[in-house]
Amino acid sequence: MVQRVILDCDTGIDDTIALMYLFGSPDVEILGVVGTFGNVTEEQACNNNRTLLDAAGFSRIPSYRGVFKPSFDETDGDYIVDEGCERFHGKNGWGGAQLTLPSSLQRGEILTGGVEFEADAVRRYGHDVIVIATGPLTNIDAMLTRYPDLAGRLRLVIMGGALTQPGNCYNLISETNMVNDPEAANRVFHSSADISVIGIDVTHRTLMTRAHVDGFATDGGQIGQFLADALRYYVNANEQADPVFLAGSPLHDPLAVAAALDPSLVGYFPINLMVDLQGPQRGRTVGDPTLINEPARNVRMALTVDSERFVNQWYERVQRAIAMMNSVINTCS
Amino acid sequence: MVQRVILDCDTGIDDTIALMYLFGSPDVEILGVVGTFGNVTEEQACNNNRTLLDAAGFSRIPSYRGVFKPSFDETDGDYIVDEGCERFHGKNGWGGAQLTLPSSLQRGEILTGGVEFEADAVRRYGHDVIVIATGPLTNIDAMLTRYPDLAGRLRLVIMGGALTQPGNCYNLISETNMVNDPEAANRVFHSSADISVIGIDVTHRTLMTRAHVDGFATDGGQIGQFLADALRYYVNANEQADPVFLAGSPLHDPLAVAAALDPSLVGYFPINLMVDLQGPQRGRTVGDPTLINEPARNVRMALTVDSERFVNQWYERVQRAIAMMNSVINTCS
Repeated sequence: MVQRVILDCDTGIDDTIALMYLFGSPDVEILGVVGTFGNVTEEQACNNNRTLLDAAGFSRIPSYRGVFKPSFDETDGDYIVDEGCERFHGKNGWGGAQLTLPSSLQRGEILTGGVEFEADAVRRYGHDVIVIATGPLTNIDAMLTRYPDLAGRLRLVIMGGALTQPGNCYNLISETNMVNDPEAANRVFHSSADISVIGIDVTHRTLMTRAHVDGFATDGGQIGQFLADALRYYVNANEQADPVFLAGSPLHDPLAVAAALDPSLVGYFPINLMVDLQGPQRGRTVGDPTLINEPARNVRMALTVDSERFVNQWYERVQRAIAMMNSVINTCS
Repeated sequence: MVQRVILDCDTGIDDTIALMYLFGSPDVEILGVVGTFGNVTEEQACNNNRTLLDAAGFSRIPSYRGVFKPSFDETDGDYIVDEGCERFHGKNGWGGAQLTLPSSLQRGEILTGGVEFEADAVRRYGHDVIVIATGPLTNIDAMLTRYPDLAGRLRLVIMGGALTQPGNCYNLISETNMVNDPEAANRVFHSSADISVIGIDVTHRTLMTRAHVDGFATDGGQIGQFLADALRYYVNANEQADPVFLAGSPLHDPLAVAAALDPSLVGYFPINLMVDLQGPQRGRTVGDPTLINEPARNVRMALTVDSERFVNQWYERVQRAIAMMNSVINTCS
């Protein structure tokens, strides 16, 4: 059976290997990829998504524009990428690595209306499409604010939050995707959508090592070399940020994609989750104390992960994506 | 089989019904009760423990003095009970309720040396005695600092911490017992003792209602009336603190005692837990990120609870304790 998915992402180095995980996975139909701000600007994310899709021969799969700044930002200004995000992803989302496509390669379009696209797909397919969000939940929130009736039809898997581990933001309480739009995430959690949350409780247990990166570079052709360049930037940034990451760099976004396709990779804890909006813990994901005794829970949050099985699977599927993309590119050269 | 236990507590209204839970439980041998500061001063806790033991006919069970202030307090001063603790427990730990014992009742002693008593018991019985701590971990930390080799023999069940729920302290991040001595708790968690943690993740799901309190008062004799007076103070304080507690007041300490005797009442999540010592989250219990990928975990923390079974069991056992204590008192009157 083919699984329909939409990826909503702020591409970003780990978003890139999440998208490539989808390319390398069997029986997946990507309906479209929607950009959001976060690791990079929303425009940069859409450009990166377009380039990756085209490199994989998917010029027919649309790259959609999303919302370009947080729901709480009521100014006229652009979104300014956080210095911390840029440190992990570089200005172009690939740590400066370049993916130059042959001029003869068929290129797809970048379309406006990502939120409407998501709404149409959810209205049409209901739980038969999984929306995977690996950035802030601003697009998802915009969709549900515009069409509240779609919440009951939405099946969402997100990378975000930290429940049993410290956060990865300045305050060591909150996780980046949540801090980038806490109000949006909190509304989505309380929307009655079917939501699975992959937070740093589990992603910090799934580590990419330099051996993996070297493995992509070796005999990896143009794509393997490009990817290894980007990943080395990410690995360096992680190692510099925290000595704990000398053991490896977290596979945040790929784990969300993998768990969407195979929920048995993680162990879920059902909980009524909220996002703190005030004070020094702004952006914290934590149980909603007003709903602690409600038998119905608004999300399932992953607390355990079969790291070995996932990391092996991730490595294999990204290798498969590299081979596929090289073959597409070489056909056109 | 008789289960040996030591209760280390800052008695306190919910400590009182935890101790009475032990009185009402079959096949339990209380080796001793050790006082600590927190809900009340350590001296008040020891006096309360003595009175409760005597009322139950246990004058032979020692009430021990413990450490009277937090490990981080290097001043010469006394411990000042936090205004928040006094609001929930009153100055005497019973919301002003008095338990006057007949003058002919046999009274036991209050002994110094609670930390040494705990050390001796752990050295002698190892995992065959469960130390249940329902206050700050200052006594336990003092024991393990003095005798580090005892960590491997210590089986500890504590009430404390909050992992997936907001805290109950001023910062809404930390839980009271942790805030009262974060350094002690953090050292204990990292000590290699066998530790089960009952935090407000689960205690906020086990609620005492006014119907329970009325049930103790009705035909409850002197003890039932005393207890109902104390519990009403606690219920009023909870209701005033947070409308969520209009549904009932958390049975914090009794749940720790119950889970010590019957671990099947809760569902445990193994985790390497630490206590934040710095910043606005001082006192927060959270996964230790430096140990996230260590297969061995330093505690098991309860995330789920069979509330109905526990609350029913708690009500029955406290009723049994009331009957027993009335019978002791009436024998002497």
